[in-house]
Amino acid sequence: MTLLVGISGSLRKHSFNTGLLRAAQTGLPGATRFEISSLADIPLYNGDLEAAEGIPPSVTALKESIAAADGLLLATPEYNNGIPGVFKNAIDWASRPPADIGRVFGGKPVAIIGASPGGFGTVLAQSAWLPVLRTLGARLWSGGRLMVPGAAKAFDAEGNLIDDAVRERLHKFIADFVDSIARASQ
Amino acid sequence: MTLLVGISGSLRKHSFNTGLLRAAQTGLPGATRFEISSLADIPLYNGDLEAAEGIPPSVTALKESIAAADGLLLATPEYNNGIPGVFKNAIDWASRPPADIGRVFGGKPVAIIGASPGGFGTVLAQSAWLPVLRTLGARLWSGGRLMVPGAAKAFDAEGNLIDDAVRERLHKFIADFVDSIARASQ
Amino acid sequence: MTLLVGISGSLRKHSFNTGLLRAAQTGLPGATRFEISSLADIPLYNGDLEAAEGIPPSVTALKESIAAADGLLLATPEYNNGIPGVFKNAIDWASRPPADIGRVFGGKPVAIIGASPGGFGTVLAQSAWLPVLRTLGARLWSGGRLMVPGAAKAFDAEGNLIDDAVRERLHKFIADFVDSIARASQ
Amino acid sequence: MTLLVGISGSLRKHSFNTGLLRAAQTGLPGATRFEISSLADIPLYNGDLEAAEGIPPSVTALKESIAAADGLLLATPEYNNGIPGVFKNAIDWASRPPADIGRVFGGKPVAIIGASPGGFGTVLAQSAWLPVLRTLGARLWSGGRLMVPGAAKAFDAEGNLIDDAVRERLHKFIADFVDSIARASQ
Repeated sequence: MTLLVGISGSLRKHSFNTGLLRAAQTGLPGATRFEISSLADIPLYNGDLEAAEGIPPSVTALKESIAAADGLLLATPEYNNGIPGVFKNAIDWASRPPADIGRVFGGKPVAIIGASPGGFGTVLAQSAWLPVLRTLGARLWSGGRLMVPGAAKAFDAEGNLIDDAVRERLHKFIADFVDSIARASQ
Repeated sequence: MTLLVGISGSLRKHSFNTGLLRAAQTGLPGATRFEISSLADIPLYNGDLEAAEGIPPSVTALKESIAAADGLLLATPEYNNGIPGVFKNAIDWASRPPADIGRVFGGKPVAIIGASPGGFGTVLAQSAWLPVLRTLGARLWSGGRLMVPGAAKAFDAEGNLIDDAVRERLHKFIADFVDSIARASQ
Repeated sequence: MTLLVGISGSLRKHSFNTGLLRAAQTGLPGATRFEISSLADIPLYNGDLEAAEGIPPSVTALKESIAAADGLLLATPEYNNGIPGVFKNAIDWASRPPADIGRVFGGKPVAIIGASPGGFGTVLAQSAWLPVLRTLGARLWSGGRLMVPGAAKAFDAEGNLIDDAVRERLHKFIADFVDSIARASQ
Repeated sequence: MTLLVGISGSLRKHSFNTGLLRAAQTGLPGATRFEISSLADIPLYNGDLEAAEGIPPSVTALKESIAAADGLLLATPEYNNGIPGVFKNAIDWASRPPADIGRVFGGKPVAIIGASPGGFGTVLAQSAWLPVLRTLGARLWSGGRLMVPGAAKAFDAEGNLIDDAVRERLHKFIADFVDSIARASQ
């Protein structure tokens, strides 16, 4: 059984990227589970807060879900041609070293996808993640690429994916990613 | 009179980068004012929040201070070899188009500096800002470079700069930046 | 009179990017000249070659043309989501310090455009130029963006631009760039 | 038996980065061979040349050596805060699809190291490789980092590594990389 954990980098209720993760859940290969983790309730990072109160429970929950995953899927929006601050903030917190859960990204297979209203579909945000994932020691999966430009047409008003061609590419992307995880852990 | 506005990308009280901005205030060239703006109270970006309540007052204050500036100085920490989420989050908010204050970064002279405990002094975070500043239409100033590695030695426990060689390079950096702004606006 | 110099990052005779520069020459604002410089005959960079024989004449010619320019326009292909080696190689040579022509990029206004067969139109190559231009001390112009995706349709078989909408955006881009140069040098 | 292939991004006879690869050959873990491949004789990429004459023999030789490798080690200089044009040019050629040797980077474990005279030891060049390796489908190994700043002191005039602390870190880096390859191929 392979456990995938997906994280969407947007807090919007009808986020395209959260919708992309829900669409990924519907077409999983066999022996695969897919859970969606959340950035909700993760505060802005502040070293003084960390020193005074330790890692917040919302961050610990995120770290536990990453630690349990066999593979991590980041669904990243693109803000100002970069990583959304709100998404990077959550990963900055999750990279902090608490007593009981160590470096959760080390050796972890990670794949990146993303949807955006514009014409480039998060290609720059996806690139901006690369040095971050490298320093975290993650195993970046580069067996596929998935950018979803023109998201306002590919998703409905509730953020549900309605573009069947994108859905098909998404399910193939997930199947290939899961396959690479399974082979690496044999 | 040239007005510089400095923004530190850390919320820590004794932040190295906030200390770098304070040190910049002490050695200004003539006819220059330097104000330090703050990320405090800027919430995590959420499109639903923006749609329901508009731009928060803390963001409007930040935007007004940027709009008033003749030049902007970003003092960026580096988290996980990238832009701190907390810093990018503030700029993501400030890039949003409210009714009364438009695109505050367009044509604005911007310089980047940074301090970090490690050996590279924010060189990767500074690079990560470049595509962001380009898409915001800022005028990136590339007449100087200032990275402060080993910040735990260059600053005291209250985040005050105590390294005179760094201070000298900082004051020269500021003087050159102010000079370029003055010449461009003649 | 404003002198623009354009450099295309491709050696192909019917290069899309060289064609983009030719198209830029046809719609110049008043009091503007536009010369196209060439990478032809620039050898692969080798520090031993430089030590033994100095800067090759083809590199000196490129440096002289850059030094004479009021503004530089880089038309960059994208190879493997990065800067073409052949283009970077020429700039690496041009950044070398010979006796008689110094740092030719320092303070020089530079704009980046590009065309590619794929769907993203060199957006990643353009970003990859940013840290390079920053360290060269160039004044990156960020007042406009021009990516030309689907170049096989926008250009004919001889590399001539045949897409009128792209031509219009290109001429506007050039006019705005020239305008920013003229204002900065007043 | 694990076969590593190392490529140095410099053409200089006494190159620091070539010296780094030679130093890697002296401390290999058991059941490992390490060959150094060369960029010599690889011409500047030109699509017309490729169309007229096909892939040059020097490029085919490089591709064959990559295809045979269980893991690839890139020793990258940093020119102007980016990938040296001469190195990127070789990889641009090697990414071209000839009849008999296909995509040689797909799924290939790749590690990046580098040495430079300056204080940052190729940290920006290493980052600049990331989107390139991703689009090539390589498996970037992020289990370690090796930057060698101040290379003029770490190497002698013939480019031989003389810094024992760097040598020790290099051998550990190689051992960890080989270990990850061996485990992935079980």
